[in-house]
Parts: sequence; structure tokens; C-alpha cells
Amino acid sequence: MGKPYVRLDKDNAAVLLVDHQTGLLSLVRDIDPDKFKTNVLAVAAAAKYFNLPTILTTSFENGPNGPLVPELKEMFPDAPFIARPGQINAWDNEEFVKAVKATGKKQLIIAGVVTEVCVAFPALAALEEDFEVFVITDASGTFNPLTRDAAWDRMSSAGAQLMTWFGMACELHRDWRNDVEGLGALFSNHIPDYRNLMNSYSFFNTEDKSV
Amino acid sequence: MGKPYVRLDKDNAAVLLVDHQTGLLSLVRDIDPDKFKTNVLAVAAAAKYFNLPTILTTSFENGPNGPLVPELKEMFPDAPFIARPGQINAWDNEEFVKAVKATGKKQLIIAGVVTEVCVAFPALAALEEDFEVFVITDASGTFNPLTRDAAWDRMSSAGAQLMTWFGMACELHRDWRNDVEGLGALFSNHIPDYRNLMNSYSFFNTEDKSV
Amino acid sequence: MGKPYVRLDKDNAAVLLVDHQTGLLSLVRDIDPDKFKTNVLAVAAAAKYFNLPTILTTSFENGPNGPLVPELKEMFPDAPFIARPGQINAWDNEEFVKAVKATGKKQLIIAGVVTEVCVAFPALAALEEDFEVFVITDASGTFNPLTRDAAWDRMSSAGAQLMTWFGMACELHRDWRNDVEGLGALFSNHIPDYRNLMNSYSFFNTEDKSV
Amino acid sequence: MGKPYVRLDKDNAAVLLVDHQTGLLSLVRDIDPDKFKTNVLAVAAAAKYFNLPTILTTSFENGPNGPLVPELKEMFPDAPFIARPGQINAWDNEEFVKAVKATGKKQLIIAGVVTEVCVAFPALAALEEDFEVFVITDASGTFNPLTRDAAWDRMSSAGAQLMTWFGMACELHRDWRNDVEGLGALFSNHIPDYRNLMNSYSFFNTEDKSV
Amino acid sequence: MGKPYVRLDKDNAAVLLVDHQTGLLSLVRDIDPDKFKTNVLAVAAAAKYFNLPTILTTSFENGPNGPLVPELKEMFPDAPFIARPGQINAWDNEEFVKAVKATGKKQLIIAGVVTEVCVAFPALAALEEDFEVFVITDASGTFNPLTRDAAWDRMSSAGAQLMTWFGMACELHRDWRNDVEGLGALFSNHIPDYRNLMNSYSFFNTEDKSV
Amino acid sequence: MGKPYVRLDKDNAAVLLVDHQTGLLSLVRDIDPDKFKTNVLAVAAAAKYFNLPTILTTSFENGPNGPLVPELKEMFPDAPFIARPGQINAWDNEEFVKAVKATGKKQLIIAGVVTEVCVAFPALAALEEDFEVFVITDASGTFNPLTRDAAWDRMSSAGAQLMTWFGMACELHRDWRNDVEGLGALFSNHIPDYRNLMNSYSFFNTEDKSV
Amino acid sequence: MGKPYVRLDKDNAAVLLVDHQTGLLSLVRDIDPDKFKTNVLAVAAAAKYFNLPTILTTSFENGPNGPLVPELKEMFPDAPFIARPGQINAWDNEEFVKAVKATGKKQLIIAGVVTEVCVAFPALAALEEDFEVFVITDASGTFNPLTRDAAWDRMSSAGAQLMTWFGMACELHRDWRNDVEGLGALFSNHIPDYRNLMNSYSFFNTEDKSV
Amino acid sequence: MGKPYVRLDKDNAAVLLVDHQTGLLSLVRDIDPDKFKTNVLAVAAAAKYFNLPTILTTSFENGPNGPLVPELKEMFPDAPFIARPGQINAWDNEEFVKAVKATGKKQLIIAGVVTEVCVAFPALAALEEDFEVFVITDASGTFNPLTRDAAWDRMSSAGAQLMTWFGMACELHRDWRNDVEGLGALFSNHIPDYRNLMNSYSFFNTEDKSV
Repeated sequence: MGKPYVRLDKDNAAVLLVDHQTGLLSLVRDIDPDKFKTNVLAVAAAAKYFNLPTILTTSFENGPNGPLVPELKEMFPDAPFIARPGQINAWDNEEFVKAVKATGKKQLIIAGVVTEVCVAFPALAALEEDFEVFVITDASGTFNPLTRDAAWDRMSSAGAQLMTWFGMACELHRDWRNDVEGLGALFSNHIPDYRNLMNSYSFFNTEDKSV
Repeated sequence: MGKPYVRLDKDNAAVLLVDHQTGLLSLVRDIDPDKFKTNVLAVAAAAKYFNLPTILTTSFENGPNGPLVPELKEMFPDAPFIARPGQINAWDNEEFVKAVKATGKKQLIIAGVVTEVCVAFPALAALEEDFEVFVITDASGTFNPLTRDAAWDRMSSAGAQLMTWFGMACELHRDWRNDVEGLGALFSNHIPDYRNLMNSYSFFNTEDKSV
Repeated sequence: MGKPYVRLDKDNAAVLLVDHQTGLLSLVRDIDPDKFKTNVLAVAAAAKYFNLPTILTTSFENGPNGPLVPELKEMFPDAPFIARPGQINAWDNEEFVKAVKATGKKQLIIAGVVTEVCVAFPALAALEEDFEVFVITDASGTFNPLTRDAAWDRMSSAGAQLMTWFGMACELHRDWRNDVEGLGALFSNHIPDYRNLMNSYSFFNTEDKSV
Repeated sequence: MGKPYVRLDKDNAAVLLVDHQTGLLSLVRDIDPDKFKTNVLAVAAAAKYFNLPTILTTSFENGPNGPLVPELKEMFPDAPFIARPGQINAWDNEEFVKAVKATGKKQLIIAGVVTEVCVAFPALAALEEDFEVFVITDASGTFNPLTRDAAWDRMSSAGAQLMTWFGMACELHRDWRNDVEGLGALFSNHIPDYRNLMNSYSFFNTEDKSV
Repeated sequence: MGKPYVRLDKDNAAVLLVDHQTGLLSLVRDIDPDKFKTNVLAVAAAAKYFNLPTILTTSFENGPNGPLVPELKEMFPDAPFIARPGQINAWDNEEFVKAVKATGKKQLIIAGVVTEVCVAFPALAALEEDFEVFVITDASGTFNPLTRDAAWDRMSSAGAQLMTWFGMACELHRDWRNDVEGLGALFSNHIPDYRNLMNSYSFFNTEDKSV
Repeated sequence: MGKPYVRLDKDNAAVLLVDHQTGLLSLVRDIDPDKFKTNVLAVAAAAKYFNLPTILTTSFENGPNGPLVPELKEMFPDAPFIARPGQINAWDNEEFVKAVKATGKKQLIIAGVVTEVCVAFPALAALEEDFEVFVITDASGTFNPLTRDAAWDRMSSAGAQLMTWFGMACELHRDWRNDVEGLGALFSNHIPDYRNLMNSYSFFNTEDKSV
Repeated sequence: MGKPYVRLDKDNAAVLLVDHQTGLLSLVRDIDPDKFKTNVLAVAAAAKYFNLPTILTTSFENGPNGPLVPELKEMFPDAPFIARPGQINAWDNEEFVKAVKATGKKQLIIAGVVTEVCVAFPALAALEEDFEVFVITDASGTFNPLTRDAAWDRMSSAGAQLMTWFGMACELHRDWRNDVEGLGALFSNHIPDYRNLMNSYSFFNTEDKSV
Repeated sequence: MGKPYVRLDKDNAAVLLVDHQTGLLSLVRDIDPDKFKTNVLAVAAAAKYFNLPTILTTSFENGPNGPLVPELKEMFPDAPFIARPGQINAWDNEEFVKAVKATGKKQLIIAGVVTEVCVAFPALAALEEDFEVFVITDASGTFNPLTRDAAWDRMSSAGAQLMTWFGMACELHRDWRNDVEGLGALFSNHIPDYRNLMNSYSFFNTEDKSV
């Protein structure tokens, strides 16, 4: 009756990491580089933790855009990695779309650089083909906040859901009891404030036990 | 004919305070802590003032998330208090949903920490079940404005109405004549600028009378 | 076929100035006070310039909210002025609605303090009754940008059009040739940068003529 | 089935540059002037690079608004240039609309000064006539961010797509292989960070070759 | 030999609270009102906690400036309270200076509204008479950050030390062991983040004990 | 003994208004134009109110810099007005220095556009000749805050005192009893928040009297 | 003759890390937590890299302040670690001062939480004893920028030099040739932008080699 | 008698451009890249315009830092260009110091990347040797504003004068009459707002003439 809650489902979601390349990252100025690096690694770690099929793609690695961030390559040694020969919209690359469809998932989690192009273009194309699209906004970066706002508006108007890596992880996990340690580690490694909470907590508990 | 005005009604509204826990509060960085504390206490005070059924819930009080803010516990000693054993989305907890439905209200006023998870997830789930959802944005906090903006967009697109505690109080009260003193006290206690106006006003009036 | 352009029409528009009171103005912190004062006087001057029926209303002038800004009273000595005895939403006041309907206009231009209450409530109520609602965002103020953003989202989702006094004046005027002097004076008096342009321009022209 | 991806197509798009005049530019304060100048020249360079029919228009060049930015005039010596005698909304000028329709394109890329008037008014009018409208947000400027946000909301609600010049260029180009040099030059000339990447890259390559 | 450390000493310090009046507070826009209220009450609570002689003064309570904030009056019922008949610089009021000198202290801790006048003027005058002056910057407010920066520069150049209430309390207290409970309460009541830390801590300790 | 308080004295101060020209004002982007216009008129009004000798000067009125703001010309019809033929530093103009010295004052209050040139250069030159220099920071504007900060640092390091027009007026006036009406009018006309306080106050007083 | 350049010397410098405790870190809001964590680890890594004697100290680890950040403990297993029993100013703790003096160094590099207390107090005390003090500003955090600015002003006025960890590392290293790999690794691990530069560079070089 | 005005003198000044390299520029985040590029080219153009001896230097061009910005190399084909083999502080490079001293100038104008290292280190070293140092703050960039503020404080405390390229050009030029065209072109090419003023001005003058 009401508006359906289109909810991330770890059995039905794939992750697309688009153009997180060392050169392109120098263009990102709407998020501080320390935080952005953390966020990109966090969305990747979450993809890995939930065993989501993950697809990597790059644009012109051999040119100024530079290579894919090495950490991502190392985290997903067996993932499909499509080095696009020229298509700006990854969805214009047949191999990429084939890899996406090969996952058999209907939910696409997308992050990339830069937001209004490398993220927005495949997001809009995927929506047209009836995928459910979730944009990881804080692992997607661009020139400045004005540019970001315009890109978000375009994607949201077309039906994409704007998420963050933390919301993504929580929505996929559903229940802490599925694995307290694992989710805790994911948070501790990528949210300094949460790490502090955990360190304080375990310190006090250890202290008390030692009495 | 026009667009119906979905308006808060004190006879048809319940308040859900989700995960305002002492540890989680250290994660909130999109609102200054002094103002955020004031806002959380204000939405609680408004709930109490309008005698709205109020439900408290927490996630993992015994872990790093920490206990519910003590002031909230003290303000609602008899309210349903659901310490969820693990569900991240409060709406996944049967006891919580039962408590919500037991109120018999169709309007849900939600505030919590963090916005994109503890607020957005139950908000989206409640919308699916045809509740009217009002998010108290300024008593809901999260990591940073970018995260907040994404969460607001997701909830608004799904049909939630974005409110603030002040708008909520005004829409519930309808007419100052229902209780000038009471509403005035609510404002004076939680809006320093309004307190100053009231103090100046009463000072001048007292002065004049004393002549 | 396309989306109709709902456009301000000076023969079909009325202006509602809601609760611009000297006490309430001290609550406005999302716009700098110098600019806000200019904007409020500008929307009033535009209303006057275009001879739009204008309605003034206040809430509790004899209390801390304080009196209507004197300049507004002076500019509209003959306008309906509804000092509401208690209704927070001006639209809940029969006299106010009667005055609005007496104008016979279907387009309502609304500005007020504070945005999420004194502007949003009557805006939502008027939309329900099929009025076309134009919110003058920069002559409406509130506690902070977060509060404003939530209020804008609520009004925009309900179909209100977000405008500024400058956009309003331009859309009403349609063509400079209708009165160059008049519109120029409106801009010169309320936009310092435009005044500078005009002063430079007329200086150069006068200079040249004096040769 | 899904939401159609309304995508810029270089064979079906025209560019409207509205009122980038030397006087009006002093009103633009939502974007830094160095960046704004770059963006305006970039959208013009992109229009030229993709051979899009381009229409220039101004309002009152002989008054305080000042002349069209000379660089634009020089870049499009043969483009239709409509110096409007008074219409504020360019779409109210018959000659302008005739020029637009003469292009035979259904996609309109619009940028101008100021956003909420010179851009929004023709954008809304064109949407009414079933054009697909793409607003180049970063080559459109206005008084301040609040004004911009309101204008964006109005245009987006009416169906305009918010873009940036970089997104526009990428969506029109589709594939780097269509012309690597040309697109690279466009970026190098208007994105300092990208120019740096290219300079580093070619330096290293030249260096290596010189070994 | 080195630069002497001019350090607050609770046996040699007095507190001057200048013009924290309900009307003047509406002028303060360089600090958010929620935080500013907290800071003003915090410096007062610190003064009380350390038993520092405290002097209150106001300017024109019976005019628009309004009365002293009632909480301050209540906290210091027996403190010298100088309602200045007209002197803008409190140091121009003989009674005020007499009260200051009667304390016998050489260190003056000053906070007030507005910073560049009510704080800076007596600070500069006191420095001339060889007092050591400590400005509590976060309990002093003014029109905007630009104004504050100019005032800080003037006072700092003249030799005043810029402090905050937290630094003041810590420097006066010297050692937690002097009174853990008291200082903890001062922090808990005026620093929400610290209160959260204390609540988490005591919850865990109580929990453990209850096992 | 202590550091002397170099205090503005209305019998020993002159005001220099440097290059507030209609063209140059479009360069000012470190202060919002509405507030900047208010501040410039405020320092002029204060100069007039305290009968301080005032000197106006401009640079190249007949070129792009444009004429002196007309309001200033009208306020000081008989003041020395030095239209410099080319000297960028007003102090390099003999006529200007002669006019300054003819006032017989040792305290110079300077405001102008742009801060790091038109203000800083004569300020540094005057300090060299042993004048006491007070920079009215909020009636001096420039390209951006970074530029302003550098200019302030240079002037402050050289011994100039950074003031604001409000601090200047208060320091010159010394005691409200010298003229309550006059100073109140100065504030009411240039500080919207203060005007509101005065309007509320007089409204309540009138109301009470009318009972 | 000129002003002596007081320059960090790796043979004469010691590092003091003061109160980087898991609880206190939740108070730091003038620097984003991701960046702050990076900076703190960077200053520690630099201390280790240059083999500078390093002293750790904490305040009340067993209370709400929480334990020292575990990473720091692990990096300096053999460093003096002074858990102060109550002294707020570390310099008031004899053991701490003894440890400092035992290093035999005259240059003290200090970082800590919170800036205006845990950093400023020992910095001012050390200056009094003729140490040369270098504050690592970006590895020191506090409640908000206003607080930080006041603390910086106090320390700078007393003669402390404000540095950052990057400036510290560069000034200590003097010449890349001393160890290109080592310094590069330090930068790569703590400056995402620099890591990107290095990754692009080595990718291109490897590529070329592989040809 | 008073404080001497240490004023830039075109016959006694040299310009040092330090490490404006394409890789290092990606680290600059305290100034927007469009503006920063403009500023760097502006200080170079000013150096050229005033025929100031200019020295270029780089650090590790063949590594990740990348080559000197090509535009600078082209502007100064005959200037001393010192590619430092490893010294981080350019002043530690004998060849560089020799080149500086060979100019015979006592005033050094310095700009570079990054501010706290490449600018601050040689600035402090030059001050020690009694040079007069002028830092061009807006053509010097670094990681973030916090870093910049610390670097400025260190340099200013040591006696460097903080300037901007515009202030530098104005102080060197002294009098427009020395060359109106030249200075105007310098401004028009690097200050978009000034270019607009000039374009409006010449347009009006040409228009009038054509009558």
C-alpha cells in the first residue's frame, strides 16, 4: 500500500567501483583526502566482508588518469577488472555490462570518481534497465560541492538512492548478531570515533576483569 | 483537489527516540554538541508536554555504543523501552513494532542517532506500512553534513516529511491560547534567543508595574 | 504537453507577510541581519511597486514576539492587518483566510519568520486549497540553515515554488520597457552591487555629456 | 521499463548563453570569480568543440548591465546574437525562440547570469514546450548560495536536469577515442588540476624517451 | 631567563562579567546561541567553583539592552553589581574600578558582550594599570567573526592573554586530585561530549559491579 | 607602568575614507555587499556625528574604478576631497598629506577599498610619521578573506590598531549620557538587531503608557 | 644581525605526546577525525623515523578520559610513559619534567589533546625554562576553531613556534638525499595526495620499463 | 621616530618562485585551483612587468613532485633555474643563495608550494641574514587553512611581511601614471572582476564616441 522500502539485500547486490585512479583522485575536492581515502577503502572492505560480487573498472590507466589505486587491486585480485579503452560511461562498455549482468544481481552499489560522470552516467543507464541503484556518496568524489549537488540531484531525480558506506554496511548486515566481531572490525578500521569507543570500552572491561 | 496538507495531530502521533546513546553521540558531527543536546532534550520535552506516546530503543547498550542518555530515561520512566538484542533497523525488532502499533497512532515522529541508519531505516519501513512519517532532523545526528544530506534525500524521496522540533511543537500546539505558559516554557528552556526575548519582556513589564 | 510553467502574474498574485516582528527577528540566524532586513524591505517594496494586494499578520504582538517591523506598517497603511489572537498557522485564522480569498487571486507570494512554521504552515494549507504558492526564501528566516533546508524540502515536496524577491520582481515585471526607471530604482535600493553598476554607468554618461 | 536515461546527444543539442554581461557578472557571488570565468569559457569552448548550435543573448547592453563578455562574442562571431530590447525572460523574445527552434534540436543546454532569472525563466518555458533542458549549473551564477539553491529546486522540480560543463562535455563526447587530443585540450585549458596531471604525465614520458 | 609563564592563580584572580544582558545577547552572532549560553554559564560556574571574587556590571538595563541574564544574578547574589549609568567602558566607572581593586587581585578574568567594546575597553584599561588580563574568548560574543578577530588582535597586541573557560578552569585547578568530583561536575554540566564520556564510564563500571 | 591604552579621542581624531568608489566596490568579496554598504555608511555617519575632520580621496574616478560612492559625497560636501591623479598610496599625494596634517589630529581612523593597498599603504606610512592609526576593518574590503588576513597581519605588526565602526563609535562616545538619542540613532540606523531591540522596547513602553 | 632562524635539529629535539587518549579524542572537533588520526600517527611516525627521544603521558587513564591510543603505545614500547596521577599541566609532574630533561635536548616538539590545556600549559612552562618549543598544530586538537585560535595566540605570543607534522619532518630531514625511501614512505603513508603522486609516478616508470 | 615603513622598491627587490611543480600543486587545498593558478601566473607576470630579477627552483623534478609548471619556465627562459638535488630548504642550496645574492637586492619576494616548507624555510633563513622578506601569500599554497595559518604565524613572528600579488604590484608601481596601460593589463588578465570593470568602461566610452 505505502511506498515500498527498496532495501539493500546482501544476496542481491553487486558493487561497482568506477575509476578510483591515482590521477583522477587529485581532482577530488569536495571531500577531504584523508576522509575520502578512508571511505573508498571502507566501501571496498564492506564489499569484501559481505562477499558481494565486485567489479572494477578504469578509464585510460596509461594516461594522466593514472592506475587504479593499488589497494583496490590488491583487495579484489579475482574481480572482473575492465580497463575501458575509451568509453567514458562504463555502461557503454559491453564487457562491463556483461560482467554486471553476469552477477545476476538486481541491486547495484556504485561509487567512483568523478561523481557527475563516472558515477552518474552508469547509474542513470542502469536505472533505465530497471536495476535498483544505490550511490555510495561518500566514496564518490568530484571537483567541488556545487558539482556534487548537481550530480546528486540528477541521480536522485532519476530514482537512485543516495547512501553512504556506513548505511550500506548496516543495511546489508541487518543484525549485529550475524557477526559482532566482523562488523565491529569494519567500523573500527574506518571510523576513528568508533575505534575510540571500542578501545575505551575494551580497556575498561579488561581493567575490571584484571581486578 | 490540491495536495493534502499532512499535518501533525497530537491525537494521532507517537514519538520514536532511536539510539540516543552516550557512545553513539560521540559520532555526531553534523550538529554542534551543545545544540544537539538541546535539540534532543527539546524533542523529548515536547513529546512529554503533548502527552504523546513515546518509545525508546537502544542498540547494544552494554557495548561501545553506551547506555541511553540518562536524561531521556528519567523523562520517560514508564515508556516502552526496547533494548534491541542486535537488529540495526529498529523496525526489524518485533517488540518495537508491536509497541509502535499498540499506540494506535498513524503519525510517527522519529529522531535518532545516526540519521542514515537508526532514523532512515525505521522511517522507510514505516512508510512502507503506510504510516505518516515526520523526521525531526535537528534531533537526529550523524557523521557529517554530506552523510546527512544523502540520508535526507533518501527519506524525503520515500515520502517522509522533514521537520524540526520547533516546527513539530508548533504544529502540534496549533494555538497559543491552548496554553501560553506551557509552550512559552518549552521554548524558553530550549531556545536561548527566545528565553532572552521573554526575559527582556517580563523585565520591562515588571519594571513598569513597579512604577 | 510538457510541464506547465507556473509563472507569477501581477494580475493574479497576492502577497502575505507573516510575522516579521521585532522580537522574532532576533531568532533569524540563517541569513545575515543586514541582508535579511534588505530582503524583507525589498519584497515589500516589490509588492507595493506591482500594486499587489498585500496582507500583514502577526502573532502575539504584545508578548515577547514584539510588534510588526514599523517600516512594514508604514508601507502598507491600508492593507489588511490581522493580529492573530493565538493561531500559529495564519491559515487557521478565519479572518486571515477571508482576507486572502477577498483578493480574488490564485497566486500567493509568502514570506515570513520563522520559515518552518510561519511560512511553511500557511503555504501547505494554501496548497491544499489549490492556490499556487511562491515562497520568497530570502525574505523568510529561521534559526539556522539546517532548519531552513528541512522546511524548504517539506514545502517543495508539497508543490510550493521556491523563489527569491529578485526572481519574483523579474517574473512579475516581464519586460524592462514596462518601466525602466521603476524597476531600476527597486534594484538600486535593495542590491548594493546593482546600485554601484548604475552609479558607475550614469557617472560615465554624465561625464561624457559634460564634455 | 525503468526510468529513461535522458542523455545529451551532440546531434540533438543546442547551447543558450544568456546574459553573461560584464556588469551583471559583478552580481555573481555564489561562485568565486576566477572559477566562474573559467567555467563560462569552458562551456563556450565545449559548445564550440562539439559544434553545437549556440545562441547568445543579452539584456540591455547599453545600460548598467554592460556588454556581453568580449571573449564570448569573439568565440561565436556567426552565432545568432539577440540583444533583447527589454524582455527579462529570453523566451518572451520571439526572435530568440525562433533562433532556438531554427536549430531543430530538442535538447537545450542553458547557462546564464543570474541563475534564478536569466536561466530559470527560459528553462521553465522551454520545458513547457517539451524541450529537454540541461542547466549548466557551474556556468550560471547569482547573488549567493541561498538564491542558487532556490533556483535549482524550482528548475529541478519542473524537470530540468542539473549538469556541469564537465559532465556536459563527457556526456556529449561518449568515448575518448573519438578524439583524445581534443577533449584533453578542453580539460587542460579549463581544469588546472587536470592540466597538472597531463604535464606530469608528458614530462615523465618525454624524460623516459630522452634516456 | 625565558619568557615568564603568566599563569592563572586561584588566589590571585577575580572575574569580571560585563554586560551579559538579555537584549545585547541578540547581537551575538559569532558563536551559536546554544553554545554561547553554555559558555557564559560555564565561566560563571567556574568562578563560583573556585570562589573567585566576581563582579557583575551592566549598561542601561532599563533600555533596549535589557536586564542582566537572570541566571547570573541568581548565581552571584552577593557579588558587587554595578549598573553603570552611562559609561561604555566599565573601567570609566569609578565604582567598578573600586570594586575590582577591592578584591586585591592582580589577575583579571574578563568576559562580556560585545567583545570589541565591553570586553576590550576594560581589558585595555586594566593592562595600562598593570593588571594581568585573561580574556575568556568563548564567553564573550559579538556581531560576527570579523569583528571578533579585530578585537582579539587589539587585545592580544596589548598583552592580554586569550583563554577559554575550559582552559581557565584547568589552569586554576592545577591538579585533579584537588577535587575530582567538583571539576568533573563542572565539565559534565557544560561539555556534552564530556558528559557522555562520564556517563559511558560510570555505566560500564556500575554494570561490572552489578555482575 | 603597564602598556598604555591608546584610546580614540574625539578631540584628537580624523577620518580618512580612501577609494570607496563604485567600480572598486565590485572587487570586495570578503564582506557581504549588504553589510559592507551598511558599514561604510556607518563609519561615515559616525565621523559626522562626532564632528571629526574627514578627508575623502579617490583614485582615477574617470576610469574603471568609478566615482566615489555618491552617498559619501553628499554626507561630506565641505570635506577635503582629493582625487589623486595617479598615486596608489594616498600618502604619496602631497595634497592628501597636507590635508591630514591640517586637521592637527594625531589619531587617524582609516577605512577604504581595497584593504591591502588603499588602507594598508597610507596606514603604514602614517605610522612611520608617528600617527596613531586605527583601521576600521569592517568598512574596509578586499578580494577575499585570505587577502584580508595578510593585510591585517601586516598592519597590526606595524602597530596599527584593528577596530570596527561600532568599537570606534563607542570609544569616541565614552558615555551614553553625552547623548543617548544620538548614539541610539546611529546604532538603530546601521545595526538591524539593535533597531529591533529599540523597536520592541519603545513598543512595550508605549503600550504600557497607553494603559 | 637579523632575526635568528630557530630551526629544528634532529640531534637536539625531543617529542612530547600529551594525552592522546581514546576518550579525550571524542572532544576534538576542530579537525576532522580521519585527518586528525592520520596526523597524530604521522607525528609519531616522524618521531620514530628520526629517532627522536619521545615521551608519552596521560591524564587519568582509568577514568572517562580513557587509555592512550593503543597505536601510540605500540609504536613506543620503551619510551618513558608517565601516567599522571592528577596534574593537568604535564610540566607540574616532576617525573615528566625529569624525563624531558633526561633527554638532554633543548628543542621540544609538542602535540596533544586538548590544545589550550594539555599542549599550551606545558609549552608555556617549557618556554619559561628556556626550551625552544615547537607546537605540532595539526596533531593537537580541541573543541572548536575558536578555542584553537585563542590557544595558538597565547602560545605564539609567548614564543612558541607553530608547526605541522609535515613541516617538522621536512625541517628535521633537511635533504632528501639523506634517505629518499624513508621520507617518501613517511609521506606516502600519511598524505593520500602524495601517495597518489608516488603511485602514478612508479606506475608510469614501471610501464615504460616494461616496454 | 615611528615604525619604519618597509616598502617594496622595484629597484631593490628580487622574486623567488619555489617549487611550483605540477605534482606538488595537487597538494594545494587551501586555495581553489582556478584561483591559485591565476595567482601564481600573476606574481610571475608582475615580476616580469617590473623587470625584477627572478629565480626559479625545484625539488626533485624527476620524481613524483613533477616538473616546474611549464608556463613559468616559458616566462623566464633566462632566469637562474636551480633544480635542487635534495635540499628541502632552498636556502641550504649554495647555488640558490649565490643566485639570490648575485641580484644585489635586499628585498626578497617569495612564493611557493608548500607554504610551511618551501616558502617558510627560505623566508626564515633569509630573515636571519637581514634580508627584507615579503611573502606572497596568495601565490603560496598548502594542504589546508590550518597548515597555512600556522606557517603564516611562524613567518610573521620572525619578521616576514605577508603580502598578496596585488599588493605587491601596487606597492612596486607606486603611481598609475608610470604606465596606466601596463598595470591595467596586468590586472585585467588576472582579476576577472577588474576585467569586467574595464570592459564595461571601454564599452561605454566607445559607445559614446560612436554617437
